[in-house]
Amino acid sequence: MQKVGILGGGQLGRMLLQAAANYPVETFVMENDNECPAAHLCHHFINGDIKNFDDVYNFGKELDAITIEIESVNEEALQKLENEGVKIYPRPSALSIIKNKILQKEFYRENDIPTAEFAVTKNLNDITNYPGLFPAIHKIAVGGYDGRGVISIKNKEDFVTGFDEPAVLERKVNIDKEIAIIVATDGSEMAVYPPVEMIFHPLLNLLDYQVSPADIDEQTLWKLEAIATKVVKHLNSPGIFAVEMFIDKENNVWVNETAPRVHNSGHHTIEANYSSQFDMLWRIMLGYPLGNTKHILPAAIVNILGEENSMGAANYLGLEHVLRMENVFVHIYGKTQTRPGRKMGHVTILSKERQELIHTAHKIKQNLKVIGLKNL
Amino acid sequence: MQKVGILGGGQLGRMLLQAAANYPVETFVMENDNECPAAHLCHHFINGDIKNFDDVYNFGKELDAITIEIESVNEEALQKLENEGVKIYPRPSALSIIKNKILQKEFYRENDIPTAEFAVTKNLNDITNYPGLFPAIHKIAVGGYDGRGVISIKNKEDFVTGFDEPAVLERKVNIDKEIAIIVATDGSEMAVYPPVEMIFHPLLNLLDYQVSPADIDEQTLWKLEAIATKVVKHLNSPGIFAVEMFIDKENNVWVNETAPRVHNSGHHTIEANYSSQFDMLWRIMLGYPLGNTKHILPAAIVNILGEENSMGAANYLGLEHVLRMENVFVHIYGKTQTRPGRKMGHVTILSKERQELIHTAHKIKQNLKVIGLKNL
Repeated sequence: MQKVGILGGGQLGRMLLQAAANYPVETFVMENDNECPAAHLCHHFINGDIKNFDDVYNFGKELDAITIEIESVNEEALQKLENEGVKIYPRPSALSIIKNKILQKEFYRENDIPTAEFAVTKNLNDITNYPGLFPAIHKIAVGGYDGRGVISIKNKEDFVTGFDEPAVLERKVNIDKEIAIIVATDGSEMAVYPPVEMIFHPLLNLLDYQVSPADIDEQTLWKLEAIATKVVKHLNSPGIFAVEMFIDKENNVWVNETAPRVHNSGHHTIEANYSSQFDMLWRIMLGYPLGNTKHILPAAIVNILGEENSMGAANYLGLEHVLRMENVFVHIYGKTQTRPGRKMGHVTILSKERQELIHTAHKIKQNLKVIGLKNL
Repeated sequence: MQKVGILGGGQLGRMLLQAAANYPVETFVMENDNECPAAHLCHHFINGDIKNFDDVYNFGKELDAITIEIESVNEEALQKLENEGVKIYPRPSALSIIKNKILQKEFYRENDIPTAEFAVTKNLNDITNYPGLFPAIHKIAVGGYDGRGVISIKNKEDFVTGFDEPAVLERKVNIDKEIAIIVATDGSEMAVYPPVEMIFHPLLNLLDYQVSPADIDEQTLWKLEAIATKVVKHLNSPGIFAVEMFIDKENNVWVNETAPRVHNSGHHTIEANYSSQFDMLWRIMLGYPLGNTKHILPAAIVNILGEENSMGAANYLGLEHVLRMENVFVHIYGKTQTRPGRKMGHVTILSKERQELIHTAHKIKQNLKVIGLKNL
């Protein structure tokens, strides 16, 4: 049996390991928390720091292949492991482009991939040198995650709200829709999942739910697919990639960013598609043929996030109500502690009818809450 | 988090644990083999003998609930645990009826559940006392499994081919179809899965594949459902039950036997139904509402069995070919050693078209083989 390791033991690792149990493979996970969501679902759990060179190198040196659950892993160790013959998904060369937002934006520009106009800013003052880019988004080059390290700056005069470290200053796109397309490649062939549309709350501007396939015309779909596959082709690495794009009010497509791994926007594929993103990554890592990305039914995903203003031992209010719904699939990630905004689970909805998907997503958002016992 | 244990660590445990990872639950498995298919997918693996009183009692005494993967577990320990407040799925009272084929047949008779006419035989000679039952099936009372302990006896004169131990001698039903219906109950409500039809090879008389829903008329479906739910009602236990029935050439329905657990005839429910049999059992054990048994699409299952005449380290021939098929889901149970007839995995096929299910099932049977390196 091949030996495959996952760096990171969160929900992505957990769902990868649920899928791994369909194949003959010996699994390894490294994370610095013995109680993490993936710790008990692998053959071998190693407590270690995924950012530490020695920990990652020692974890990987006896393995056939390694994948990641999060970008913030020790690249140098992965590069050494790759040099020594361990297969890394994604390749360290692709990971290093994506991990650094400056390199990522330059990669798009060099490869004629449409992305919002930008400048590289070294510090706070540098922001004032690009008056033509406002209103703008400011993103730190390294270490941003789940919305941290990203801020909107309306005009040059507000530059002090930006980051005083290397960052990308990017012209704000006049967004009509936000789309993610997951692309899988074994290095020669590619398989493209149907596009996912992120639906934001009109007042709170927070991700409300996701629907797949997106409600877009065929021409736009072709454009999105062409751009997503171009990104993945130029990253020159086997693996799973989630390409996040904007469609603006003039129907132009702009790449926002790419994740070189299984992704939150693809969780519905567990139930909704013939080969889920998790199944697909195992196929790639084990040398099997790519799977079928077609959907069985259209789907929506509602993320279950830790409620604002509370933390502590996780309590799931309204779970019974949601479990009574006829066409939903509940995934609780098994995290014992909640905190505001923490990803605690997700619910997938299947239906032929888009209105039914949206209606059910709203009902779930209204009913299902994760609260802790401490008020903040 | 509730603590739930599984007695037995084979493929049923493995698939139960894949489903468990959708819920907040701490999982325990006991089996006498550290390399068994479920060993690495639980929070706590205990090496022990599921037939041993002390092992089962010590395993269970700190748990909230226990389920079984196989009937041959120590009932007395389970009874003691139930007396002390551990919830057992199925209840020991139901398990003891089912484990003993004599008690099981008497249970059907006492509850007016149609089952083939039978007599209890204490030894070989006893068989000759029931000349009116031939051609007959002879089944040992205790310990039969996967076809072992069952033999067909054509006439009284062949009595020596029978079993010289307590057994059931049962009139052979003139079978038109074999059907399994899985019934789930939390003790108050019941949920019934669509019927599964077992298709046998016309020459070899071996199970070829399974299709759900079965191709039967509505009247027969009602009869099957009424009988299956009656069996489960009288077993008086929460859990999952697979009721195996015959439809004879005159369209009468006869209960063959019942399994008080998740069952091979329900594996397609992982992909084909909103709530799989594995998901459903967790809902019952964790006190959640019953799930939706409706199918998303009709399905077929092909079992992947160890090839005749070979054993040793398992090699999967034709796996690539099957993984290229567009609408199939491969489940390899991760057993390192194959032997003739051993259940090594299964493949689920989804399609709206029954002919497509059957055609694909045949293609898979022709292409996918598990061989070992030793010839027998």
